[in-house]
Amino acid sequence: MLTRRDWIIGSSALALASAGGALAQEAPRTKQFVIDCHGHYTTEPSELGVYRKAQIEALSDPAKSPPPSSLKISDDQLRDSVQIQLRLQRERGTDVTIFSPRAAGMSHHSGTAETSRDWTLVCNELIHRICGLFPQNFIGVGQLPQSPGVRPDNCLAEMERCVKSYGFVGFNLNPDPSGGYWRDPPLTDRWWYPVYEKLVELDVPAMVHVSASVNPNFHGTGAHYIAADTTAFMQFVTSDLFKDFPTLRMIIGHGGGAVPFHWGRYRGLAQDMKRPPLEELLHNVYFDTCVYHQAGIDLLLKIIPADNILFGSEMVGAVRGIDPMTGHSYDDTKRMIDAAGLSEEDRRKIFETNARKVYRLDRVAALNSAGRQ
Amino acid sequence: MLTRRDWIIGSSALALASAGGALAQEAPRTKQFVIDCHGHYTTEPSELGVYRKAQIEALSDPAKSPPPSSLKISDDQLRDSVQIQLRLQRERGTDVTIFSPRAAGMSHHSGTAETSRDWTLVCNELIHRICGLFPQNFIGVGQLPQSPGVRPDNCLAEMERCVKSYGFVGFNLNPDPSGGYWRDPPLTDRWWYPVYEKLVELDVPAMVHVSASVNPNFHGTGAHYIAADTTAFMQFVTSDLFKDFPTLRMIIGHGGGAVPFHWGRYRGLAQDMKRPPLEELLHNVYFDTCVYHQAGIDLLLKIIPADNILFGSEMVGAVRGIDPMTGHSYDDTKRMIDAAGLSEEDRRKIFETNARKVYRLDRVAALNSAGRQ
Repeated sequence: MLTRRDWIIGSSALALASAGGALAQEAPRTKQFVIDCHGHYTTEPSELGVYRKAQIEALSDPAKSPPPSSLKISDDQLRDSVQIQLRLQRERGTDVTIFSPRAAGMSHHSGTAETSRDWTLVCNELIHRICGLFPQNFIGVGQLPQSPGVRPDNCLAEMERCVKSYGFVGFNLNPDPSGGYWRDPPLTDRWWYPVYEKLVELDVPAMVHVSASVNPNFHGTGAHYIAADTTAFMQFVTSDLFKDFPTLRMIIGHGGGAVPFHWGRYRGLAQDMKRPPLEELLHNVYFDTCVYHQAGIDLLLKIIPADNILFGSEMVGAVRGIDPMTGHSYDDTKRMIDAAGLSEEDRRKIFETNARKVYRLDRVAALNSAGRQ
Repeated sequence: MLTRRDWIIGSSALALASAGGALAQEAPRTKQFVIDCHGHYTTEPSELGVYRKAQIEALSDPAKSPPPSSLKISDDQLRDSVQIQLRLQRERGTDVTIFSPRAAGMSHHSGTAETSRDWTLVCNELIHRICGLFPQNFIGVGQLPQSPGVRPDNCLAEMERCVKSYGFVGFNLNPDPSGGYWRDPPLTDRWWYPVYEKLVELDVPAMVHVSASVNPNFHGTGAHYIAADTTAFMQFVTSDLFKDFPTLRMIIGHGGGAVPFHWGRYRGLAQDMKRPPLEELLHNVYFDTCVYHQAGIDLLLKIIPADNILFGSEMVGAVRGIDPMTGHSYDDTKRMIDAAGLSEEDRRKIFETNARKVYRLDRVAALNSAGRQ
């Protein structure tokens, strides 16, 4: 197994090979290093669910709320719990996963800001411990203690702690903490600016990612996730957010929702509204590859420039079955990208170098390495 | 210009040609008759806006609400107002448009059920008059007097009236009368069953189509429309609606939102949830072609069977500009379908025969013809 140090070196070698042009292309092909930017911790030990249940049951009597320190999960339990991720990484050829708490589990709509604070501390700490146990396999991304109607200033301390103490490389930002009722302002409202200032200061990106839906209209992974991705992109189209934060980086998961499929609509709407062309957004906005069939992946790769696509699988996540049409897992998106006939250069961007750039992984890997010796 | 009678005859000839197999394919190619299933009346005379403004201003004092009969628009005004549609039909080679009131204009969130009733009477009557003035060019589809929180039983009389008196062939059904807050039950809830019973009884389909968004999170045509289409499909995936209404036909506009792009996700989710395969939904669910770039159209045509795709352009609608990459209108979707390399059989289905089947056009055309002699 590669150590973190190996892959930093590997990356330099690749950069050199890339600079070498034609000569490098004739050299024996090295295995492409693969970074999966979209993995959630969905195989938690049952103790975590027990804790959360007690927390929710105590909402009517906050004094009974279990303190985060009351949750006891051993390192062995954590190791056991991620064996499935490690096996799938090996089988699929993924080297490292950018790993965050279960997205549906964030459930910011439940309880108060204090509920979300305690729950976030617990969830982020587990991610941190897993990254410590398997530093070659997981890099941490945090959830935020968002709460509907609460100014997101309450997230700043946790952001600082996660990056500076845990070495996390980004955050999941929920554009709808109400869980499907969309009662907070759009992501482009100044309401959210303290979060963006902190992201810029810490030089880490956010993935736009809603949590569970409690609105019966929206199935979580089938409607709310995809609709929210689409919605966030259109918020970006109609705003000057990235003029105010030129170095802010946002990843829209699930292939950008409907955006690549309706790219002409978005180009046309931007044009009709006399907004800048979409290409300008691509200085700040990235898409992952969580699209679960070849034709969808092909469209994504055709429409969105390779510089803006980050490999992601959402494994183990929304869809867990085997596609009978292919005999492979729906979420084995690496296989589909491999089959897409990309140039070596584009493959390298999508599987590795874009993620390094967007998450500033080399810097953070070094930090982690120093912190974990 | 073809008369309605001509195109009924044309259709029979085509059916015969189709039955003729190889021999028919060698016959000289006739111009394909083209039915656009998705056009809204977006070029209304300004008097309509004045009426609506007065109606909204009277919400605090309903006694001041202008009666529908107070709106005066002459036939000449109506003729003038649709010249742009007629010109675009000629230029693009569309023969007839299935035509409904401006979708964003339905604004069911404004006022009460009485507000929506009056407004719907006015809007549907204008569509009826236009269809009467240009029977070869427009076939009517109605809006419904929906109102948030009001049981949709209040729509039944208008449905009956529109089909039986106006010869309308379908309705736009708004899955979110609250305008972006999604407070009514999902489309699969029994709340909506009276509407489905009436649709089945009248043997007309509904197009799932939200109206304007008053939620600042959702841009109307860029986010709310596309998100709602995606949401409705997932509601269908998770329900037995079409077991209860096996002959009910629903069209999801805008290419089905994100659905074809994420077809693998939907197949996988259905499989994980032990729901029937998506193909079963395709007995009842159809998609239009309002996707504004070639790669999107190509994906739609590749993923969704030709039997389930109805040509649509949403002209004059959400996107009105010229795409500088092609030199043609973004919403000139006919051109993209022409460029997609379809077989003659699939072209015929998408441009004509599916719409005839889904909207029962031959029956209704005869009714209209009888009613308008």
